[in-house]
Amino acid sequence: MRFISDSSSHGVREQLFELEGVPGVLWAPEGAAGSRPLIVMGHGGGQHKKAPDIETRARRLAAECGFAVVAVDVPGHGGRPVDEEFDRIATENRARVEAGEDLARLIAEFQALVSRRTVPEWRSLLDAVQQLEHVGAGPVGYWGVSLGCGLGVPFVAAEPRVRAAVLGLGGALASAGDAARITVPVEFLLQWDDERVPRAAALALFDALGSVEKTLHANPGRHSEVPDYELDSTLRFFARHLG
Amino acid sequence: MRFISDSSSHGVREQLFELEGVPGVLWAPEGAAGSRPLIVMGHGGGQHKKAPDIETRARRLAAECGFAVVAVDVPGHGGRPVDEEFDRIATENRARVEAGEDLARLIAEFQALVSRRTVPEWRSLLDAVQQLEHVGAGPVGYWGVSLGCGLGVPFVAAEPRVRAAVLGLGGALASAGDAARITVPVEFLLQWDDERVPRAAALALFDALGSVEKTLHANPGRHSEVPDYELDSTLRFFARHLG
Repeated sequence: MRFISDSSSHGVREQLFELEGVPGVLWAPEGAAGSRPLIVMGHGGGQHKKAPDIETRARRLAAECGFAVVAVDVPGHGGRPVDEEFDRIATENRARVEAGEDLARLIAEFQALVSRRTVPEWRSLLDAVQQLEHVGAGPVGYWGVSLGCGLGVPFVAAEPRVRAAVLGLGGALASAGDAARITVPVEFLLQWDDERVPRAAALALFDALGSVEKTLHANPGRHSEVPDYELDSTLRFFARHLG
Repeated sequence: MRFISDSSSHGVREQLFELEGVPGVLWAPEGAAGSRPLIVMGHGGGQHKKAPDIETRARRLAAECGFAVVAVDVPGHGGRPVDEEFDRIATENRARVEAGEDLARLIAEFQALVSRRTVPEWRSLLDAVQQLEHVGAGPVGYWGVSLGCGLGVPFVAAEPRVRAAVLGLGGALASAGDAARITVPVEFLLQWDDERVPRAAALALFDALGSVEKTLHANPGRHSEVPDYELDSTLRFFARHLG
């Protein structure tokens, strides 16, 4: 784990790093020492580790809950090079959608493919970050919607250190089997008028989650229009389960 | 409005009253003076104005938010006499269910019938309670699930003083038209394994609400198993919109 920068603002410390070629960012309360809960965040498609909706949530989780938060670039995103295999599939998929194939199914299949790379990357990330003195081996949460949900479902299913997850804006087409293996509390976000994820597929993914405690929060609006009050709810959810 | 008793415990004042033959209860912070938000609560089927889930919520709204809360017995419930018309229909419905008719449809039709009585009763209740010095003409909210949703949807649609509502555990079979006329913020509770309300009917009622701001909270479990953390959410929802 190679640290690239270290800065603080508004009471939150931000460290950029690289781990086995993957660029990442770690936030924690300024002056933090000792172990604390850690949230792994998965960014959306076409975004990166410091996209505004990631950084806003991360800084509030650090400042208001005292948590550490880590996010890395997904293959082919942010500071990572173009991935030839994924790039070729994405190009093929655009042609298949134009030829009339179902967009939601192609997205789901693509996310399942990418997750075979990100699940081991994120597990190695946990190993490394939890060895830092100001993070330690506290309880772990996961936050990810859209692509972050498609990659998050197999990650949360595979990683026993994750004890609570916020997921959503995703459907069950490719990940129902992984979802059934998730048993930790989940808060699941659904946009009622989502133009990218069919409502029935999103409800099916919530239904497929194996968790005894899972709560679906559905709000009107399109894919990117999650209301601000859900961020407050996310903070309370993680504080309740990891705090 | 005739007051029957007046007592206080744990910082909350409770007044039993009767208004035009309808028994009711009013909660407010002990020593309250001046106007404040008022929540009207509608109880469930077979329950009454002081059922535990009503009283628990009312006392927290009074103690933690400083609100006034009022609930009355629905016709044929609590301290009200048996209503011969409703009693006859309920008996007929039991026979119709045994003969194979759809329970959810019969419940919805029955609630629509009862609401023709309760909507004017609850509007008169608002008139009377808001004249009390320690309640006043502040913003009004409505809370009601199950029967309290079936009666609440037409009430909230008809009553412009209501500015926010918590509804749920009900379906759209009889009330979709009223639901479409509701424009205030709504928090809608749905039990994922509800044995009385088909999931599709509950989702259809949420869908039918005309509100720009509406949020669906769905949790696993049967009709009566709404998790405790939803009560915390109810308090925050009313505090945000009426406080």
